[in-house]
Amino acid sequence: MIKPQTLKGFRDFLPEQAKKRQYVIEVLKKVFESYGFEPLETPVLEYEEILAGKYGDEGDKLMYRFEDNGKRRVAMRYDQTVPLARVVSQYQNIIPLPFKRYQIQPVFRAENTQKGRYREFVQCDIDTLGLNSSATDAEIIAVSAKAFEKLGFNDFRILINSRSTFGDLPIKAITIIDKLKKIGEKNVKEELRKNDFDSGILEKIQKTTLSDSLNLVIKIAQKMGVDKEKIIFEPTLARGLDYYTGTIIEIDYPTYQAGSLGGGGRYDNLIGLFADKKVPAVGFSFGFDRIIEVMDELKLFPSELQTTKVLVTIFSLELADKSMTITNSLRTSNINAEIYLDANTKIDKQLKYADQKNIPYVIILGPEEVKKNTVILKNMKTREQKQLTLDQLPNAIK
Amino acid sequence: MIKPQTLKGFRDFLPEQAKKRQYVIEVLKKVFESYGFEPLETPVLEYEEILAGKYGDEGDKLMYRFEDNGKRRVAMRYDQTVPLARVVSQYQNIIPLPFKRYQIQPVFRAENTQKGRYREFVQCDIDTLGLNSSATDAEIIAVSAKAFEKLGFNDFRILINSRSTFGDLPIKAITIIDKLKKIGEKNVKEELRKNDFDSGILEKIQKTTLSDSLNLVIKIAQKMGVDKEKIIFEPTLARGLDYYTGTIIEIDYPTYQAGSLGGGGRYDNLIGLFADKKVPAVGFSFGFDRIIEVMDELKLFPSELQTTKVLVTIFSLELADKSMTITNSLRTSNINAEIYLDANTKIDKQLKYADQKNIPYVIILGPEEVKKNTVILKNMKTREQKQLTLDQLPNAIK
Repeated sequence: MIKPQTLKGFRDFLPEQAKKRQYVIEVLKKVFESYGFEPLETPVLEYEEILAGKYGDEGDKLMYRFEDNGKRRVAMRYDQTVPLARVVSQYQNIIPLPFKRYQIQPVFRAENTQKGRYREFVQCDIDTLGLNSSATDAEIIAVSAKAFEKLGFNDFRILINSRSTFGDLPIKAITIIDKLKKIGEKNVKEELRKNDFDSGILEKIQKTTLSDSLNLVIKIAQKMGVDKEKIIFEPTLARGLDYYTGTIIEIDYPTYQAGSLGGGGRYDNLIGLFADKKVPAVGFSFGFDRIIEVMDELKLFPSELQTTKVLVTIFSLELADKSMTITNSLRTSNINAEIYLDANTKIDKQLKYADQKNIPYVIILGPEEVKKNTVILKNMKTREQKQLTLDQLPNAIK
Repeated sequence: MIKPQTLKGFRDFLPEQAKKRQYVIEVLKKVFESYGFEPLETPVLEYEEILAGKYGDEGDKLMYRFEDNGKRRVAMRYDQTVPLARVVSQYQNIIPLPFKRYQIQPVFRAENTQKGRYREFVQCDIDTLGLNSSATDAEIIAVSAKAFEKLGFNDFRILINSRSTFGDLPIKAITIIDKLKKIGEKNVKEELRKNDFDSGILEKIQKTTLSDSLNLVIKIAQKMGVDKEKIIFEPTLARGLDYYTGTIIEIDYPTYQAGSLGGGGRYDNLIGLFADKKVPAVGFSFGFDRIIEVMDELKLFPSELQTTKVLVTIFSLELADKSMTITNSLRTSNINAEIYLDANTKIDKQLKYADQKNIPYVIILGPEEVKKNTVILKNMKTREQKQLTLDQLPNAIK
């Protein structure tokens, strides 16, 4: 017999976890849409040439790619930005600019799973294309901050920097300076020296003051509702610099050390990749898995993620009809109600099933209750039981 | 330059289409959850041995499979039932039975695209595992019918049959009889004869009467709220019989000839595939793409799928702050409001953008309005303009 197992780095999400994921996605979508962002979907498979060479050596190494049945070289979605660039040039006569889109889909990377990384993970991206006004950068910050607020985060920080802080420093030096938060000042300086850079450039970068243009972005973000206290100018922040051309943003949660909860910035040279013209762009990508991890730690998920509100038990085959009628009427009152589908199962076992599934309420309907036209409503947390008329039932559950 | 294009059989969904897809998924999820079904997610990639050989010769031919970077043979999700079978045995100590789950994910099949088929398409499945009561079959019918109702369908039909109708007829004969709706009586009989069957078996099957057990399923479905008029006993219905072991269901829309809008039934031999035990199962799969196609034809999508309700224009850089304040307050009133992010764009062009994006309302805020503490609200459909105070604004838009 074949062993039932998932591939390393791939995950199943059983209901409890799947509901948390859906919850985060729903909250994010609602925030995105409140700012005028609209959904976009692209396929899992693309022509290999669309994706190859777009993510550096590492991307080419980690990309899932193969020859399909029709001898075409194909590759699996690696991120959502290169497909966005393809979409924008493929449909350039249809898509009005500015194009504000969100995209929430899984991507695939053959990562080293020993580092706690997954090979299939959901990316949540927002991007505004076609404008390079400061207000566009500011709005990306405002939406991202609002999203974290709506998820229940209070003490997140918005680190901000600009590509211009680094002037014409070589990429190698920038990459080392970018590690400051991770490895500390001493190690950054040492690594700079090892690579024949003056270790003094770290201090020089650290002493950079806020530029007028970045200051304007921050000011507009404030007007858009972002708490100024949350925005921190961080001149060593780079986030893979060959990509960003202007504002660079990162959102982190101080007590969560494993990394940022999301990041983004302005990247004016990428979206035009497949077109003849330059398309300015600014975006933000939410670290979906990390957000869920931190929300679990901080207990930010609502207790009522349980979708099923009540289990209607079946006392006996004879009384099954009564249970069905009640279930129907609960659903009409917009209460998610499950009916136990087997009259031969003892009530005890039906109650145990409700416990296992964390269903908060159970309705029991024996011959006594039917005679009196009532039901027993059992609160599975407090184990408290109440006898109620059918009229009282919906409110007692809501 | 690389040509921006999608692979044959793969699709991008631009916002208008993506919103329709999200709408259908939201409606379905809500119905599923109201009956106690919970979400499950499985990975796109599985070990090849998990999927290979499970879908007949055609499945093995159409499956996307390849060797990954770690020399593992892997395959892309082909349906959601075999992964469900894997999940149920992999987590058998964690998942309480009955297990009622829904799953909405893309699957991948290298289909002949000339037949109008897609190579990546979303499947929407509900299944109840662990029970073989008639009520379980009935509930699957009730949920499916409710889902079509909530999507706005009126005149759908629920065709129903049972595996037992065919007795011990060879599969080949059943497959031919199953084509009745598609190719008509004459052709079915001819094909039966060609394959050395007595063409009289068609009539024999057609004359089969409703069995007691199927009758019970229908009766319970009615008690669960299904309109009896919609249920039609169709003794020639088979839907790939080597799979189904009991009830067989299909939902179609009479004027839509291209095929059914969904189907399912009882299949008690498949879910135990990776376990030592037998797990009874009944389920239904919604034809997602066809449902959207028919809903488009019948105009069943709500006119208000447009997520952005209002575009707040920017009259000039000086007045930008005022526009931002109004946008913030609209969002606080739960109105999805987009602000135009460039003060240098002429109002005419901003209005044109709202038209292109089908945004129903535009707010214009010039020096006159600011002086009077009012705004102009323009209805983009009627082109009607009103001058309103800020207090009047939310209600005028809602």
